[in-house]
Amino acid sequence: MKEISKLLDYRQTVRVVDATLRDGGLVNSFYFSDEFVKDLYDTNKRAGVDYMEFGYKASTEMFDQSKFGKWKFCKDDDIRAIVGENDTNLKIAVMADVGRCDYKHDIVNRSESPIDLIRVATYLNTIPTAADMIEDAVRKGYEVSCNLMAISNVQESDLVVALDILGQTPVDVFYIVDSYGALYPEQIARVADVYMNFAEKYGKKIGIHAHNNQQLAFANTIEAVGDGVDWLDGTYSGMGRGAGNCAMELLLGFLRNPKYNIAPVFQFIEKHINKLKENNVVWGYDLQYLMTGLYNQHPKAAIQFTKEKRTDYYEFYKEVIEQD
Amino acid sequence: MKEISKLLDYRQTVRVVDATLRDGGLVNSFYFSDEFVKDLYDTNKRAGVDYMEFGYKASTEMFDQSKFGKWKFCKDDDIRAIVGENDTNLKIAVMADVGRCDYKHDIVNRSESPIDLIRVATYLNTIPTAADMIEDAVRKGYEVSCNLMAISNVQESDLVVALDILGQTPVDVFYIVDSYGALYPEQIARVADVYMNFAEKYGKKIGIHAHNNQQLAFANTIEAVGDGVDWLDGTYSGMGRGAGNCAMELLLGFLRNPKYNIAPVFQFIEKHINKLKENNVVWGYDLQYLMTGLYNQHPKAAIQFTKEKRTDYYEFYKEVIEQD
Repeated sequence: MKEISKLLDYRQTVRVVDATLRDGGLVNSFYFSDEFVKDLYDTNKRAGVDYMEFGYKASTEMFDQSKFGKWKFCKDDDIRAIVGENDTNLKIAVMADVGRCDYKHDIVNRSESPIDLIRVATYLNTIPTAADMIEDAVRKGYEVSCNLMAISNVQESDLVVALDILGQTPVDVFYIVDSYGALYPEQIARVADVYMNFAEKYGKKIGIHAHNNQQLAFANTIEAVGDGVDWLDGTYSGMGRGAGNCAMELLLGFLRNPKYNIAPVFQFIEKHINKLKENNVVWGYDLQYLMTGLYNQHPKAAIQFTKEKRTDYYEFYKEVIEQD
Repeated sequence: MKEISKLLDYRQTVRVVDATLRDGGLVNSFYFSDEFVKDLYDTNKRAGVDYMEFGYKASTEMFDQSKFGKWKFCKDDDIRAIVGENDTNLKIAVMADVGRCDYKHDIVNRSESPIDLIRVATYLNTIPTAADMIEDAVRKGYEVSCNLMAISNVQESDLVVALDILGQTPVDVFYIVDSYGALYPEQIARVADVYMNFAEKYGKKIGIHAHNNQQLAFANTIEAVGDGVDWLDGTYSGMGRGAGNCAMELLLGFLRNPKYNIAPVFQFIEKHINKLKENNVVWGYDLQYLMTGLYNQHPKAAIQFTKEKRTDYYEFYKEVIEQD
């Protein structure tokens, strides 16, 4: 049984990361209004959130800038237009995907940028490139995390090798990323245990980014807190790809550090989120996401099902188990 | 850490109870079509569900029968019109609320009834009446469970007294009922531990009925499975009062006993549940339910908020904390 005494208290080392613009941007192609982004930034400050992820540092060579909102590219000037000099306790993060980011060129020295944290996202088969991106970002002065995606599809014997390689880089945080929303809390506990061995060996922190395919994004996140995971991703109303993420409002309701404040989150959601939903921006738990989560598959077929406004769940179930 | 080996296997003693008509009936005043109820019965049989709760045995003296669908009263003839002689593995349950049921008169001998299980629902301050109802039902030949409601508002020192009284009755199952959706998985583990002491002492089983105010109904239910809780309530699409319950589709996806079959659940939901939602039958997670859950309050104010189609979450939040 977990020590509830530890959960009623709090760990100074816990950090909350708002990933609304980044993971939520996958739902609306990053077309957020400036008012939305400014209000989100203000809300995060008032709520005591530690990091706000603005989006991706995607390659403008690979991606057509006319087809996405600006937060797919997160140019420093666009961030500065929102945060100014950001003389606050809220730090600024962006995600850099292995293979989709011209990091050597597009990420400048931290001293010249409003960004504080580079989140390198990688699958297990691109760890050496991820390691190079980590080295590059640390050399430029940034805090750096490494998000190991689709962890539910990874062999534990491969995972330990990956963590040992990453442990030897100057990365600050290893992330558990349940991209498929496939893991149960018991499995999170086991994965966290594997991560913890390397975190302790190399002096790193651990983070978690959960998906809500089985209504477990929040449950898995608080399971992880009890297992010693310090960096916690949330998004407002759980906005994120497919079934979405751990809801910020649930997470801040759970955490006991008095620096966190849930009231501004309610104000933000009231003002902005229902409006998004009325404009047919769709995310959140539904049967199609449960199915891909249950069978440990990428949610892309479920996202397509949603896009086509299909409701023939049973047909889709047969498609999913055929892929299995 | 929980033994995942035990979760990948299964316990023969686990029982799944479909509470859709009963808890879902609280959302639509028990006005289900006969086709809905017949299809649900057939689906439960095909899905391997162990018990189907048809509704309440409410007093026709206290409640006006013209203001509710028939499943608030669960007359034996109405059940028989659906299940005939019910010569199946699916057992039939009804709920009998302390103080709202003329149990001595309305519950006849099991030999003359299609019902198998009486679920006595009580708050802690009416345990002696619950004990009398349990004795009455067992004398008449029924299986009997006792649902201890609003457990999150109960002192542990009172709970142990209640469980010791109930342990001395011939009840078969003690239920943990998180009526307010207030408990975290860590707390479920602790409550289950308290229950387990008395279950072992008196040879009883333990059950759980969870609510989804904090998106934890499923997570709390599977936490409980890992803690030795055997009787698990679910409802299709989580249909139930306020934020709803543990979703049957999630629960059957998790359980490993080959007798359970998730496919019919998808078929039922596809045919019936979206139609209900289109007819403005509303349930499920939303901020107002998170707030009452977080502050361990009865959801009635949140249900009223929903009914009035209010979206001023922040105002409601201030109302909730004023009640605190």
